[in-house]
Amino acid sequence: MVSFVYFIFDAEFQTKRMSLLTVGSVAFDAIETPFGKTDKIIGGAGTYIALAASFYKNEQKIISVVGEDFPQEMLDQLTARNVDISGLQIKKGEKTFFWSGKYHNDMNSRDTLITDLNVLEDFNPIVPDSYQGADFLMLGNLMPKLQLSVINQLKKRPKLIVMDTMNFWMEIALDDLKEVLKKVDVLMVNDGEARQLSGEYSLVKAAKVIMKMGPTFLIIKKGEHGALLFHEKDVFFAPALPLEEVFDPTGAGDTFAGGFIGHIAKTKDISFENMKTAIIVGSAMASFCVEKFGPQRMKEITKADIDARLSEFVQLVNFDIDLV
Amino acid sequence: MVSFVYFIFDAEFQTKRMSLLTVGSVAFDAIETPFGKTDKIIGGAGTYIALAASFYKNEQKIISVVGEDFPQEMLDQLTARNVDISGLQIKKGEKTFFWSGKYHNDMNSRDTLITDLNVLEDFNPIVPDSYQGADFLMLGNLMPKLQLSVINQLKKRPKLIVMDTMNFWMEIALDDLKEVLKKVDVLMVNDGEARQLSGEYSLVKAAKVIMKMGPTFLIIKKGEHGALLFHEKDVFFAPALPLEEVFDPTGAGDTFAGGFIGHIAKTKDISFENMKTAIIVGSAMASFCVEKFGPQRMKEITKADIDARLSEFVQLVNFDIDLV
Repeated sequence: MVSFVYFIFDAEFQTKRMSLLTVGSVAFDAIETPFGKTDKIIGGAGTYIALAASFYKNEQKIISVVGEDFPQEMLDQLTARNVDISGLQIKKGEKTFFWSGKYHNDMNSRDTLITDLNVLEDFNPIVPDSYQGADFLMLGNLMPKLQLSVINQLKKRPKLIVMDTMNFWMEIALDDLKEVLKKVDVLMVNDGEARQLSGEYSLVKAAKVIMKMGPTFLIIKKGEHGALLFHEKDVFFAPALPLEEVFDPTGAGDTFAGGFIGHIAKTKDISFENMKTAIIVGSAMASFCVEKFGPQRMKEITKADIDARLSEFVQLVNFDIDLV
Repeated sequence: MVSFVYFIFDAEFQTKRMSLLTVGSVAFDAIETPFGKTDKIIGGAGTYIALAASFYKNEQKIISVVGEDFPQEMLDQLTARNVDISGLQIKKGEKTFFWSGKYHNDMNSRDTLITDLNVLEDFNPIVPDSYQGADFLMLGNLMPKLQLSVINQLKKRPKLIVMDTMNFWMEIALDDLKEVLKKVDVLMVNDGEARQLSGEYSLVKAAKVIMKMGPTFLIIKKGEHGALLFHEKDVFFAPALPLEEVFDPTGAGDTFAGGFIGHIAKTKDISFENMKTAIIVGSAMASFCVEKFGPQRMKEITKADIDARLSEFVQLVNFDIDLV
């Protein structure tokens, strides 16, 4: 009887420890698209990842930094969504990271108007003791050095480390980025970045080169053209939902990452097969994100909305074929 | 007993009449890609379509025109593949249509170096009596006026009329093109052409506009990014196989069309569901076409090669998801 009770306790303990740790910026953005423009609104890779992953009822922890100017209300919203923010530093007398950009008419390219690093400039991420033992680590797009610092602070290697990055770091911090690559399992980049990092135009060739740099899984995001997942000799193609209008693409990649890691952390299954499903989940999440400015849409949707959209994805690619 | 025999005869007669009529150029191409260049080789939309569709054992008929310089050997190859060439005119003392182009490094764009219309200049397509009654009409990319002429010569409207076209005709013969559009069921264009024809950047919006112009089905080809099929409120997305190398994209769109219509004609099923399968077949065919210069690869492959590649497509997009 005692051992039975112990078993129950242990199982619950295990479940709790199956947590997701996200590192990423929590920030302000000001966005201009052909459809309109915003003043300072909430943004940041960490915000989008946490919001998207919160639909998968994980025990989530975030490492980030904001200034004194960041609204407590948003932090409360994260807490309400079961996101542990004890590793989110609030710097007195300092300002939150601010990015401002303007999208071109095709929505596939944008100009950065302002980048005020502010608190990010001398950010030193600290992993609290209570964060140790996380099974899934999501490294949002951030200076590679900071991503590496978090990995190095973890006493137990997570079951899966997923890394997002961008062309900017390839240009100014390639050596650091390559160090991080050696330590991660999954890399997420867009098609242009995969080409830049590998020096290969063909994405199939690019994938082979990048998978020799460390990650055994590579996700290449192609925006409206979907995403590819590479692993050893396998490849999976996930479509993007054809949308009438992309209102604001800001955060779509981070939201994709959040949906992806949220599904993986919930199912605790890091197989290629389950990553395929996770990519579909990420794509569905991202398809909501672009419908309104910033993370607005991610705050409105329900689990039922997500399931309805997942059905659309199934319909979108489902076909029958008789192979003789 | 007599009626039974009659029935058998009639059934066979019906089967024979389920034929495919293709209109398209049979031509010479000279191609330059980053991988090499060719002298004059066989090309033409009609050639690619007929070769691809021939794998589906249809009774095929082609309407086209060549000059005296066109090799009898290639015509014999078409005949050997069960393509009826009695509607293919051979113009004594004239030269075959010749196109020459050079692909850019990304293989997604090309410059036309030479266009010698030759026999195409005053081509007057004539539908032989033996071609009447065709159930499937594939209008390869050609002057819209000629496509229209063939439609108008048919005494019985085919069950399905599929039209391929290109931006060039939108620029110099838009009114003619719009006339043809009113009479076809399926239009195939690439993404740039869909945008040009509709004036809409969003492909979902473009599809709505174009489907008001006549065709009830629209296929938007996105090259390495796959293809979309639109019909009423339904949409289907077919991936392109991620390839290490695209050796020569010439004829890929025509080969896609040939695989598509070949499958439809063989199965005699013009439902949305079956068109999805037909697009996968077309995509598989096109993935072979780009592996060598011109139609070379299409002459080498077997039905077993095609089935193996269709399996790759199934693997590529197959995923499991639990919708609660």
